[in-house]
Amino acid sequence: MNVYDRMAELSVTLPPPPAKGGLYTPAVRFAGNLVYVSGCGPNIGGSNHIGKLGAEYSIEEGADFARGCMLNVLAALESRVGDLNRVKRCVKVLTFVACADTFYAQPQVANGGTKLLADIFGDENGLPARSAIGVNVLPGNMPVETEALFELIDGI
Amino acid sequence: MNVYDRMAELSVTLPPPPAKGGLYTPAVRFAGNLVYVSGCGPNIGGSNHIGKLGAEYSIEEGADFARGCMLNVLAALESRVGDLNRVKRCVKVLTFVACADTFYAQPQVANGGTKLLADIFGDENGLPARSAIGVNVLPGNMPVETEALFELIDGI
Amino acid sequence: MNVYDRMAELSVTLPPPPAKGGLYTPAVRFAGNLVYVSGCGPNIGGSNHIGKLGAEYSIEEGADFARGCMLNVLAALESRVGDLNRVKRCVKVLTFVACADTFYAQPQVANGGTKLLADIFGDENGLPARSAIGVNVLPGNMPVETEALFELIDGI
Repeated sequence: MNVYDRMAELSVTLPPPPAKGGLYTPAVRFAGNLVYVSGCGPNIGGSNHIGKLGAEYSIEEGADFARGCMLNVLAALESRVGDLNRVKRCVKVLTFVACADTFYAQPQVANGGTKLLADIFGDENGLPARSAIGVNVLPGNMPVETEALFELIDGI
Repeated sequence: MNVYDRMAELSVTLPPPPAKGGLYTPAVRFAGNLVYVSGCGPNIGGSNHIGKLGAEYSIEEGADFARGCMLNVLAALESRVGDLNRVKRCVKVLTFVACADTFYAQPQVANGGTKLLADIFGDENGLPARSAIGVNVLPGNMPVETEALFELIDGI
Repeated sequence: MNVYDRMAELSVTLPPPPAKGGLYTPAVRFAGNLVYVSGCGPNIGGSNHIGKLGAEYSIEEGADFARGCMLNVLAALESRVGDLNRVKRCVKVLTFVACADTFYAQPQVANGGTKLLADIFGDENGLPARSAIGVNVLPGNMPVETEALFELIDGI
């Protein structure tokens, strides 16, 4: 199914590509059909979520932040490749969760992002290899950050 | 030498592939001959190690945990590619060490995992590029987590 | 322009390749033209910077450390590939900043490393995809660590 039809069914709308927060490139294509997307935070539009899991935010809020990170990742990817129907699969995701030292549910948080990928691209191509880790703090005090590696379809 | 003969010499037995802890794929093959293995913890069989380096655990225990993580990584890799003789090299490892703010021996911990790779695949193909970092907490309060990128032999 | 002429203009001198701090390979070439460089710290020559951002060090000092990390990354890369004119682009950088729980300027720190890449290789090829995260502690209590993925020019 066309990816954009699927997103319409899911009522998923991509935000504008996230503003760059430093000296880097939002999404870099390399080795033919691979694209690395820079770490993206959860803020969309005018939102400015700050704080940490296990302190200011619950697991459910964290999962929603991880979903927001992935929406920004997809917006950066689309901005680079033009058409998300060119995505063969999401290869790898690394999700960082800013959290208290006693917060242990990083995977449940990260699921909010990879569930979106599976919903859009299907389980087989949408569920990447993944690591989800805790960190003591992220840029701008944002609660979650996600980077991702994608593979594109040959010859498109 | 056949990888499994080498493992037998070393008395290394792979565990069953680790149970998935979320919405992801344990090992994803991409770009022809590359495989990304998701972050794996140290628990094998019924063990449930929880706690941090520089607090509950010593460097030596940490190195043994990193070895356990790598056994799980190899089990996930074998489950995806079928035969570890197809491994050309381990390209890259990222080892996260949950630790006290004053624990500085992350590389010695990570060595427990990469030593296993070198023992099995030889120094030239077994020793990957690596980063070893401290983090304040990991999923389920596990002490060590490792993800890895492998390259397979062409045409097998 | 020849990369070494550009470095001379910038008065950039590469240090000797950093000493290995464990069981790994400083830079691994794979999948034809890709090279993964292991996590490098900021110390060059006899320096031994220890401590954290938001505690012992300022943002400006952190950016200088990130530049030092990148000099070590480039030295490890050159040691593997022989001639930095073979670099097509820097694909991806991951910068870890050891910091206080209330330090939020990881991107400004990481900019010190990616600015060096842009100065040497140009914005288009020098600015990689990037994540910059905080961690509670790094090996040897160093303040910043950077790993990097490079793509080489075909057929050289």
